[in-house]
Amino acid sequence: MKSKYVFEINMKVRDYECDLQGIVNNANYQHYIEHTRSEFLRSEGISFVKLHEQGIDTVVARLSMVYKSPLRPDDTFQSCLAVRKEGIRYVFMQDIFRLPDHKHVLHADVTIVCLINGRLSDCELLNEIFGKYFQNE
Amino acid sequence: MKSKYVFEINMKVRDYECDLQGIVNNANYQHYIEHTRSEFLRSEGISFVKLHEQGIDTVVARLSMVYKSPLRPDDTFQSCLAVRKEGIRYVFMQDIFRLPDHKHVLHADVTIVCLINGRLSDCELLNEIFGKYFQNE
Amino acid sequence: MKSKYVFEINMKVRDYECDLQGIVNNANYQHYIEHTRSEFLRSEGISFVKLHEQGIDTVVARLSMVYKSPLRPDDTFQSCLAVRKEGIRYVFMQDIFRLPDHKHVLHADVTIVCLINGRLSDCELLNEIFGKYFQNE
Amino acid sequence: MKSKYVFEINMKVRDYECDLQGIVNNANYQHYIEHTRSEFLRSEGISFVKLHEQGIDTVVARLSMVYKSPLRPDDTFQSCLAVRKEGIRYVFMQDIFRLPDHKHVLHADVTIVCLINGRLSDCELLNEIFGKYFQNE
Repeated sequence: MKSKYVFEINMKVRDYECDLQGIVNNANYQHYIEHTRSEFLRSEGISFVKLHEQGIDTVVARLSMVYKSPLRPDDTFQSCLAVRKEGIRYVFMQDIFRLPDHKHVLHADVTIVCLINGRLSDCELLNEIFGKYFQNE
Repeated sequence: MKSKYVFEINMKVRDYECDLQGIVNNANYQHYIEHTRSEFLRSEGISFVKLHEQGIDTVVARLSMVYKSPLRPDDTFQSCLAVRKEGIRYVFMQDIFRLPDHKHVLHADVTIVCLINGRLSDCELLNEIFGKYFQNE
Repeated sequence: MKSKYVFEINMKVRDYECDLQGIVNNANYQHYIEHTRSEFLRSEGISFVKLHEQGIDTVVARLSMVYKSPLRPDDTFQSCLAVRKEGIRYVFMQDIFRLPDHKHVLHADVTIVCLINGRLSDCELLNEIFGKYFQNE
Repeated sequence: MKSKYVFEINMKVRDYECDLQGIVNNANYQHYIEHTRSEFLRSEGISFVKLHEQGIDTVVARLSMVYKSPLRPDDTFQSCLAVRKEGIRYVFMQDIFRLPDHKHVLHADVTIVCLINGRLSDCELLNEIFGKYFQNE
């Protein structure tokens, strides 16, 4: 499937995110893509925090990341996102590209599920928000 | 494949690793399993840092994580590891279990490759160190 | 004032806490000393998390740190703590020593205040818990 | 002394920087102000990373922070910086203001020293770069 991104933000590496090898530490990419999902949700007028306060917890059930090329201090990058629905799960397809050369840094598939008052549930609110973006075959 | 762990360490959640939802933030599990691999290597008398100083960089090429159950403040847990070889790649199979009830928290498969002086290479040193632990079918 | 520690824990540097310079990144010491305070509180049967759930938020009002000597990958260290009361503020005097040579790594003074239901207050519960440890001149 | 800032950047809180209390974890402010110093240096055409590669390590010797008001998820803020020289030490006076209301979040004084090939030294390069900004009484 050729994914068409529905949201993009630009970010910049911060020195403290780099480790002994002089490159961004692996775990920080997870922060980048989490922040991208948060900002996507905010662009729709809602947030994970507000959802949490309403008793809706979105949790990562599954994550896979393919590291293509490392980011280094001073690099800027574009973090892109598409989303599809699989049963009650939301699957975010996320890519990071270094700027300005668009070198592919990372691909991730992140599966999110909703717990409503602690119970695994289909979330009408998120279906409504994300629905127009779903890219299912 | 039923994996038999070749290394285990116990750790404890630190409050600052938890986020707004009151559970350990997803990216921190990646820190836990990275630390486990580091300590495994140290138990063999070498370290990623020393390897880096010798021009051998071990980099994560691929990572998949299945989140089974979250860790919370004050939880202690056991982080376990097995390793196999696939071509020139090292695949670490890692599991985290909450203590004392051994509830399954996370399963991860982490694929590591070696760059020797910047070039993707088979690493004799790591083959020697890890070789006795390889669990290939 | 010669401080006499009332609580100590041993910890170990994790590789991912080190930055490009090959030493523990400055902000991580703040994590170490926060974790030490958390564990001190837990050793008294309470936790910052439980306090938060009871509407008691302990917040850092002021922090000063003197960096004496850096920690490096594979270092183990001892994190020590004493506490005194100044008005409604709790001042934690914290030191980190590298092991096994007890080289002085860091001294910190951390001033904590309590917000009870959002209002700056003297906290009877914490006074009771910490009272026996106060080291006032 | 009334400090006049010589550098400013805008940043945004990322959800993962917030902890159980729903506010940015204390240690992350240290990241914010470190990133601000890094970007200040970059705006002058140099970086801590490049300095490190030239054998010049800038290390934090002393840090004090006064927490005025917490940042929360979705907050944007302005991070401002001034610098003065005291002997061979560089003292950065840093403030964070929430946007758009300019509420004062944090004041920090950060003392940096230079190690040139491991030896505490006065750094001509940094004197030249920072010199025009020094705000000494």
